[in-house]
Amino acid sequence: MTAPEPNQPMSPVEFVDERSGGKMVRRQGVTAPLGFRAAGIAAGIKASGRPDLALVFNEGPEYDAAGVFTANQVKAAPVLWSQQVLTGRRLRAVILNSGGANACTGPGGFQDTHATAEAVAAALSNWGTETGAGEIAVCSTGLIGDRLPMDTVLSGVTEIVHEMGGGIEGGTDAAYAIMTTDTIPKQVALHHPGGWNVGGMAKGAGMLAPSLATMLIVVTTDAKVTAGQLDTALRRATARTFDRLDVDGAMSTNDTVLLLSSGASAIEVSQDELDDAVFAVCDDLAAQLQNDAEGVTKRVDITVTGARTEADAVVVARSLARDSLVKTALFGSDPNWGRVIAAIGVTPVIIDPDAIAVSFNGAMVCENGTGVPGAREVDLSGDRIHVVANLNLGDAEATIRTTDLSHAYVEENSAYSS
Amino acid sequence: MTAPEPNQPMSPVEFVDERSGGKMVRRQGVTAPLGFRAAGIAAGIKASGRPDLALVFNEGPEYDAAGVFTANQVKAAPVLWSQQVLTGRRLRAVILNSGGANACTGPGGFQDTHATAEAVAAALSNWGTETGAGEIAVCSTGLIGDRLPMDTVLSGVTEIVHEMGGGIEGGTDAAYAIMTTDTIPKQVALHHPGGWNVGGMAKGAGMLAPSLATMLIVVTTDAKVTAGQLDTALRRATARTFDRLDVDGAMSTNDTVLLLSSGASAIEVSQDELDDAVFAVCDDLAAQLQNDAEGVTKRVDITVTGARTEADAVVVARSLARDSLVKTALFGSDPNWGRVIAAIGVTPVIIDPDAIAVSFNGAMVCENGTGVPGAREVDLSGDRIHVVANLNLGDAEATIRTTDLSHAYVEENSAYSS
Repeated sequence: MTAPEPNQPMSPVEFVDERSGGKMVRRQGVTAPLGFRAAGIAAGIKASGRPDLALVFNEGPEYDAAGVFTANQVKAAPVLWSQQVLTGRRLRAVILNSGGANACTGPGGFQDTHATAEAVAAALSNWGTETGAGEIAVCSTGLIGDRLPMDTVLSGVTEIVHEMGGGIEGGTDAAYAIMTTDTIPKQVALHHPGGWNVGGMAKGAGMLAPSLATMLIVVTTDAKVTAGQLDTALRRATARTFDRLDVDGAMSTNDTVLLLSSGASAIEVSQDELDDAVFAVCDDLAAQLQNDAEGVTKRVDITVTGARTEADAVVVARSLARDSLVKTALFGSDPNWGRVIAAIGVTPVIIDPDAIAVSFNGAMVCENGTGVPGAREVDLSGDRIHVVANLNLGDAEATIRTTDLSHAYVEENSAYSS
Repeated sequence: MTAPEPNQPMSPVEFVDERSGGKMVRRQGVTAPLGFRAAGIAAGIKASGRPDLALVFNEGPEYDAAGVFTANQVKAAPVLWSQQVLTGRRLRAVILNSGGANACTGPGGFQDTHATAEAVAAALSNWGTETGAGEIAVCSTGLIGDRLPMDTVLSGVTEIVHEMGGGIEGGTDAAYAIMTTDTIPKQVALHHPGGWNVGGMAKGAGMLAPSLATMLIVVTTDAKVTAGQLDTALRRATARTFDRLDVDGAMSTNDTVLLLSSGASAIEVSQDELDDAVFAVCDDLAAQLQNDAEGVTKRVDITVTGARTEADAVVVARSLARDSLVKTALFGSDPNWGRVIAAIGVTPVIIDPDAIAVSFNGAMVCENGTGVPGAREVDLSGDRIHVVANLNLGDAEATIRTTDLSHAYVEENSAYSS
């Protein structure tokens, strides 16, 4: 089974945004589907004064939702809260903050999350939409271990609900407000020919599946679907997109991917149609996360072919994506295929060392486990590298998106909390 | 069960050696025990002209030996050869080369190793010691994937046997000749009060248990022991020393640890005595490897206590030792305990997030899974950091030796083969 190719008309409309230093930024995200509003503000949680609070609001008429969360045994308070909320399979809104992860903060931290959800529900109710805290998901990202400044958060909640009242735009503001070390906001919209839409936003810059420097993703759709359909589509999509993005092997305490449906298009869609569209949006966001990963100088796609099973292919590709010696060689544009072979040899997948073939950017460097002439001369100086390792044991394959291991990665991650 | 403390009189006699740029170098290694000669020469394998061929020769009267080898499924030709030789549990000599790993070189590479062993046996026989190739272990280290310059290797073999003829010294020369990115040779000698000795040499600078930038270790003793005793002592020692040294999670195709006994002291020793002495020598060499690891600015010992089993403690400590976010934080002297907790949470060991306590250099930074006051102010600016994570689940513990992840590591490993 191979992943479906993105085959939907995406909306990559971009504009030059001075907020990103004049970089091109996508125009459409979570508010592209009908029935969604969003906002992003600088509430004062970040010392820098940058935007740090975002709200995504579902106007309905439906409120079905699904979510997947970090597999880390250490889960932040907002993850514990949102997991509990999602058992109801319904969400009215998602409140997201950067500037603090609210992880490893004990019972007090969980009370803070609960209080935030209550404040959002109260503000939305005051605004005219009767809402309970049990319909509000909470996401946080930032440094682990510190309590959030709750006075600031709670006054921000009141402000952001009023801000959102101004219009159905605001998706881009929300995408800015969840950034930490990201250099640009990540958004995408898919306008299905059948008349329904899917939109999404993402943040995350040093990460795994999903992971540290937390990955937060909100995807919205106006298709008329059941919560069960959403759950199936989201799990299928994340398994082949965010779960196959692995920059540094770390996994955050806060990673969250949410999918909300408003049903506002009134168009019923099949599971296959929904699966394809949600996959396309998640795949695009995953590529954006890879492109903007912390300290990246090269985007590296690692494909393992010829595996006995897809699970084996994922294990081997992920091991290569995490191997410091492979990643530093690629940073140095060094076609050091021996490190690839050595890294394959230490996975739990049983291999035949004499059967492996490796190529870099389409140039064969190793066949039958030994080097081919000219292998050391392959030019890897560009900013994209595709490594293909063929185990020659079967027909299964998988690809992991990763990056090189650069000076900038060390720099950025050696000066984070202090 | 805890590891025995080194309790034997070691011989740390050092001298200023201009070959190491005036650094202090240990004087005694594999030739400290009676019955061993060694030599190291520049045979011309390395383009730099530095020493690249070493020989350790056992004069007897006994020739018992044991070895442990890389667990990588991709094994270099010399590893395949030496594993086969060791089934005879007897070695007359070990020939070691730097300047090429002879890994992923196919059947031709294995023939090269075989020819090298034949040449050593012939040269020793000409020199007056009747020897067969099946009594010669071969070790190689360097770049994966290239064939060795066999004319150079074979003429070097003749030269080094003559060189060794000059005297029983030469251990230090041998220790120099196996260096690759090491900055100093690693040696140690233990003179047991009972009148017998153990000596050793090691090379390796970016490694795991045992691992890439290959770890090669030769340990000698003049105790009168059986091959079975040697095998037991070596496996017990490596399991708690070299197997718990983990710089970058990589594992070489060439790693080899050999233990040879000459019996020349004629002193019979018990298994416990031998175990303790071999452990002490291996533990000292492992510490030297940690100190000289590629690009290290801080030596980091990670101890996990309060685990249910020692195996669990090793798994958690090893995961911390491999976590790029933990290692970059320590490079930045950043007491970012949240990254430690997050890294513990993704191991397969079931933990209680609310029970974990963490200290840095004895200063408690996290208790019951949450931060303690002052945790962000702990001074980690020195060149040694001891991280202790208490899972509070049981009584077992283990320590892994590792390093920080620095700019120098990236620099050194991004410019190796090309």
